[in-house]
Amino acid sequence: MLEKGYIQVYTGNGKGKTTAALGITLRTICAGNKVFFGQFMKGQNYSEKKACQLLAGLTMEQFGGVCFVNGTPTEKDISDAKAGLEKMRTVLTSGEYDLVVFDEINTALFFQLLTIDEFIAVLDLKPEKTEVILTGRYAPQEIIDRADLCTEMKEIKHYYNAGVDARVGIEN
Amino acid sequence: MLEKGYIQVYTGNGKGKTTAALGITLRTICAGNKVFFGQFMKGQNYSEKKACQLLAGLTMEQFGGVCFVNGTPTEKDISDAKAGLEKMRTVLTSGEYDLVVFDEINTALFFQLLTIDEFIAVLDLKPEKTEVILTGRYAPQEIIDRADLCTEMKEIKHYYNAGVDARVGIEN
Repeated sequence: MLEKGYIQVYTGNGKGKTTAALGITLRTICAGNKVFFGQFMKGQNYSEKKACQLLAGLTMEQFGGVCFVNGTPTEKDISDAKAGLEKMRTVLTSGEYDLVVFDEINTALFFQLLTIDEFIAVLDLKPEKTEVILTGRYAPQEIIDRADLCTEMKEIKHYYNAGVDARVGIEN
Repeated sequence: MLEKGYIQVYTGNGKGKTTAALGITLRTICAGNKVFFGQFMKGQNYSEKKACQLLAGLTMEQFGGVCFVNGTPTEKDISDAKAGLEKMRTVLTSGEYDLVVFDEINTALFFQLLTIDEFIAVLDLKPEKTEVILTGRYAPQEIIDRADLCTEMKEIKHYYNAGVDARVGIEN
């Protein structure tokens, strides 16, 4: 159990946001604490599913897929995100988890799957000893204002631009 | 085993560099691959030591401590780093590991514990299928030039500035 939990934000266009949240997840589990890792707008992926088998104390859940990212969100995308936020409210307020990750929440806000107000209403329920991590590009200023720590992951170069696809064990 | 391994660099003054390397380590282990995580200029810390017990396939080793960071490196700091680089040469060229992390190597280069030339001589031995991650502030341009991916972790705000100490399970 942490003495006090803070709000961390990882944003920007570079690789390393979800990855950093996974790294802190590993440290938290190693310290004997519990983590809930909720993923908005992400299909289930291989390695992260497997992580729950290896790391007792880690729970991961996906809320909706990614297919609309270059198009327009459907009603289902929106209802999936809203159901996800409801689940995260329950998780956060339970106080059962030392670290609660809202993975890609910034992106979900950017695409208006959720409003800033409805998300902040949940964030404001954070118990004092719970650490919260918020990831995704385009973190809105209201979120950065509420954060205790914010890192912008800035792309200097990325192998995607050289045609390298996402790989299991590295990106997935 | 990866089809092809790349060189990733995480640099900048923000939180998330070693953390991102740990996140990719977790994914790599989940994919059934092997990781060697070498740490320059870092004392052994609690969570990362524990990670080796939880994750079969992960080996971590520390080369030297951090005590001089605000002063001048001693001869021992330099000889520790040089011995670390030799160990990393063996690890990298063995081809036994799918991912090899040189944690804080950029910082070790910045403080001149190692020369760029002697480090690049090792980096150039990377087997084709081995992924390499290099972390630490102040990545020199020669390293960024050799990287396939580089993210700058840029501090927007950090709770250290508000007096929060490093915490087990989050930073350690």
